[in-house]
Amino acid sequence: MSEPLRIVVVGGVAAGPKAAARARRLAPEAHITIVEKDEILSYAGCGLPYYISGMVENRNDLMATPIGVLRDPEFFAMVKDIDVLNRTEAVAIDRDARELEVRDLHSGEVRRLPYDKLILATGAEPFHPPIPGSELDNVLQLKRVEDADRLRTEILNGTCPRVTIIGGGLIGMEMTEAFTECGSAVSIVEMLPHVLPMLDPEMSTLVEDHMREVGVQVLNGTRVERIEGDDNGHVARVVTSSGTFPAQLVLESVGIRPNVELARSAGLLIGVSGGIHVNHYMQTSDPNIYAAGDCAEKTCFVRGTDCFLPLGSVANKEGRVAGSNAVGHITRFPGVAGTTALKIFDWNVGRAGLSVSQANELGIPVISATVSAPDKPHYYPGTKPIVLKLIAEKATRRLIGIQGVGEGDVIKRVDVAVTAMTAGLTVDEVANLDLAYAPPYSEALDVIIHTANTLANKLDGLLRGTTSLELQSRIDAGERITLVDVRSPQEHEETAIPGSMLIPLGTLREHADEVPHEGTAVLYCQTSLRAWEACTILAHRGYDNLEILDGGIMAWPFETVSGGA
Amino acid sequence: MSEPLRIVVVGGVAAGPKAAARARRLAPEAHITIVEKDEILSYAGCGLPYYISGMVENRNDLMATPIGVLRDPEFFAMVKDIDVLNRTEAVAIDRDARELEVRDLHSGEVRRLPYDKLILATGAEPFHPPIPGSELDNVLQLKRVEDADRLRTEILNGTCPRVTIIGGGLIGMEMTEAFTECGSAVSIVEMLPHVLPMLDPEMSTLVEDHMREVGVQVLNGTRVERIEGDDNGHVARVVTSSGTFPAQLVLESVGIRPNVELARSAGLLIGVSGGIHVNHYMQTSDPNIYAAGDCAEKTCFVRGTDCFLPLGSVANKEGRVAGSNAVGHITRFPGVAGTTALKIFDWNVGRAGLSVSQANELGIPVISATVSAPDKPHYYPGTKPIVLKLIAEKATRRLIGIQGVGEGDVIKRVDVAVTAMTAGLTVDEVANLDLAYAPPYSEALDVIIHTANTLANKLDGLLRGTTSLELQSRIDAGERITLVDVRSPQEHEETAIPGSMLIPLGTLREHADEVPHEGTAVLYCQTSLRAWEACTILAHRGYDNLEILDGGIMAWPFETVSGGA
Repeated sequence: MSEPLRIVVVGGVAAGPKAAARARRLAPEAHITIVEKDEILSYAGCGLPYYISGMVENRNDLMATPIGVLRDPEFFAMVKDIDVLNRTEAVAIDRDARELEVRDLHSGEVRRLPYDKLILATGAEPFHPPIPGSELDNVLQLKRVEDADRLRTEILNGTCPRVTIIGGGLIGMEMTEAFTECGSAVSIVEMLPHVLPMLDPEMSTLVEDHMREVGVQVLNGTRVERIEGDDNGHVARVVTSSGTFPAQLVLESVGIRPNVELARSAGLLIGVSGGIHVNHYMQTSDPNIYAAGDCAEKTCFVRGTDCFLPLGSVANKEGRVAGSNAVGHITRFPGVAGTTALKIFDWNVGRAGLSVSQANELGIPVISATVSAPDKPHYYPGTKPIVLKLIAEKATRRLIGIQGVGEGDVIKRVDVAVTAMTAGLTVDEVANLDLAYAPPYSEALDVIIHTANTLANKLDGLLRGTTSLELQSRIDAGERITLVDVRSPQEHEETAIPGSMLIPLGTLREHADEVPHEGTAVLYCQTSLRAWEACTILAHRGYDNLEILDGGIMAWPFETVSGGA
Repeated sequence: MSEPLRIVVVGGVAAGPKAAARARRLAPEAHITIVEKDEILSYAGCGLPYYISGMVENRNDLMATPIGVLRDPEFFAMVKDIDVLNRTEAVAIDRDARELEVRDLHSGEVRRLPYDKLILATGAEPFHPPIPGSELDNVLQLKRVEDADRLRTEILNGTCPRVTIIGGGLIGMEMTEAFTECGSAVSIVEMLPHVLPMLDPEMSTLVEDHMREVGVQVLNGTRVERIEGDDNGHVARVVTSSGTFPAQLVLESVGIRPNVELARSAGLLIGVSGGIHVNHYMQTSDPNIYAAGDCAEKTCFVRGTDCFLPLGSVANKEGRVAGSNAVGHITRFPGVAGTTALKIFDWNVGRAGLSVSQANELGIPVISATVSAPDKPHYYPGTKPIVLKLIAEKATRRLIGIQGVGEGDVIKRVDVAVTAMTAGLTVDEVANLDLAYAPPYSEALDVIIHTANTLANKLDGLLRGTTSLELQSRIDAGERITLVDVRSPQEHEETAIPGSMLIPLGTLREHADEVPHEGTAVLYCQTSLRAWEACTILAHRGYDNLEILDGGIMAWPFETVSGGA
């Protein structure tokens, strides 16, 4: 009988334990070791914001199986027959000898672990921005469970009435919610023009509006100059390009970077995105070494380029694939769609694939459609609105992107789009998906189908649209644009886009002549459905200067007026 | 200039108005007429159960646009430039002359409408079962808005403390909820062995258990012999093969049949399922005549056969395709996945594609996997359990079916599976879908991914499973089976399958020898995850007689014991 296979895994949070567990199930005889720098392992890092806010009461809930068994070294030994060396640092890889040099952080002892297959799951670290004052007390980051403990203590003690969060990415947004719900007044500072840069700007603007409604100060396009302290070395205020704001706590969440030093020192190829380069089998440039999770570079199969995407869902899948392949059960990982999801206060936010901005950067001609609609029939109680945007590649009509925001069920539609993009479906195919229908769940024609139909109409040249941001900047630039509201007089009275004229759809056949032939006429209604109906009527009368406002007034993030425009 | 195209649509509920509206938008010059037998048109028939229960307060909500405009003939004329002849019956089609003969049901006047393209959307009618006593007062059906008015009056007046529903299909189930929530005691009688026959029996059994918990009397495998009345000709009791039950109201919902007489009389081909035969362009055997909605036969692209599937979602899509093609904007309808969704009390129920039972009937070798799991991380508040079953074609590993039941978000997973089946994805591809992840929405490895992984393991021969029903019938047949509970002593104490032995997973490496090598050992836990872990350990010790209980005790619909099995 041959020697048992020796598998060493570096990293014990998400991808590492997953890889080890999968390897164990496939290879009961293998000798499997996990090396983890910290004390704690196998925890749900994505749950930390909910632990900090007190929504998750017990820290152990994040580290236990669903029935409450703590995943500690003893659990791994007893249940999974996996050795765990925690508080142990991986120091160097000797690729020729196939040995990993590790140091016990408690005793300082150094030793070498021989391996047949090595799996790197070294994770990622928050990036420390070079902001003067970062060394002050209460300038924090969120990476480890200990950070979460510190933040939870600060937040629940109520000693931080004012908090500044630097960085409007996913963690920054989740922590904005956590701090706000615990009673702190939060300012979120984002250097880019908008928070959540993975969204197109008119969509992130809607999210910013929602945050401001809840009382958050959103400072986009703003640079933090320095953090100033009081006499005790505590944070006192944050000086930004938009002004100075008092704060008793600053959370830096400007992005995270893959931990690749161990791999780099061993001469493994590092990818353009900064992660460890891997192939579809999660193999690094050394076929006996795999990498998985936040430290590994991802391939986005929609855009066909490599990227950095630190997500627990991807880490778990990659870990499983790495664990399978390490024991010879060959499995292919197809890459990621760039999917992200976020709950921010009462809104659900999701996206996948390419945004229009990203497609423009890559030079890929695309067309998008945005529809505002209820997530269920209007007559069903508890129906909530969403704004959904789909993006298609012009040349192939393939769906290549989705973005959704709003109170309603955005995420279901994102998951459908992710599946469609994985399979390369066209918007025409999406429009005829036999999605589950009953009034508690969706309209007879679900909003994603409705949006796909609108997009197909645009691809067919039946319809031209403009986004809210485009329209605003065209108006600002002095372009001759007539805004026509085709809703009812009551709706127009309630809220309208400034400067728009009213011609209710029901009277348009009589009043068509009031629409000017010069310049561009942009038609809008609540969602854009009636606006399209109106375009059809006017086009039949010879108008060729018509556009609709994508998503209607429900997707309009700027000023509105009431009492008639 | 040529004569405008003349389009006549027969049927004004769902597919008909959709076809007409789509044709209007594409062909502003066409002359479009809708012929509808009833007074009321363009209403949300699927919303009727919610109107009957009072959840939807205003009947007009079902017939109005989201902003409350009633879709009456005037609306169609003013907004859409479509002529509506309601209270008008389509009597005959003269295909040679391309004329539709219609009769005004008010005046009795008969006239002929010339058409270039005719679209049949004649819908379906409830089947009247030949049950003695069906003619009694308060033996009702639900098809038209008027039926809903009558049912709502009866139900809200509280004059029907006991209701019997004949037929456990979708309408029967929705009406069971409606009557129960209004305070009636409901008996539902299903002739087949289980309600919801589109589900595999172990899944419908779980639904029946849930209904019984709420207090519904579920009489499956039961035939209604007759309905008996009192001296006033009112329903008094229902006599069934399972006993006689008092009832003041009987709802017959034993299925509906497509209305095809007009088409049949005109010599159009009727399909094997009883619907009007159409091709992928919704054309009947006469290329100038289209059919859409409940009257038209569907092709299920998963099984590749024709079927009858009366659903508003499908009707709207087909209507849109028929309307496009009628005006020369050629569009293809790919068929249906056989998707259905149902909310029944606190549970969500969904399915698509083939069930195992259907696959067996068709002789298609399949493997299924069932997983019970929370729909979100266990630590996130508001997490709810679901039981999910995926079915793959053995030969191709393609996903060909899904079924889900439970309190959690079943429908999102059904929609993902529908999209995957549309594209022909394998379970391996489903297992690596980059689905949206954040703790408010799903586990890092979503339950559908977890189920797909389990199914892939089964396809790979790594794992054998048995469903609850199979296991029960094998035990009943005297097969030598040892049930092993690998959960904790506390869990076993709380609830266990009768006759099972307890070996907690954490102690299995020491106590493996207690598992017999003779007969079959079926391992179970809460969900089946620990059972698989246990199988791995035992297989390594030479056991080759291992199976897991699909879905664990959470998916076990039969008797359990507490205090130790």
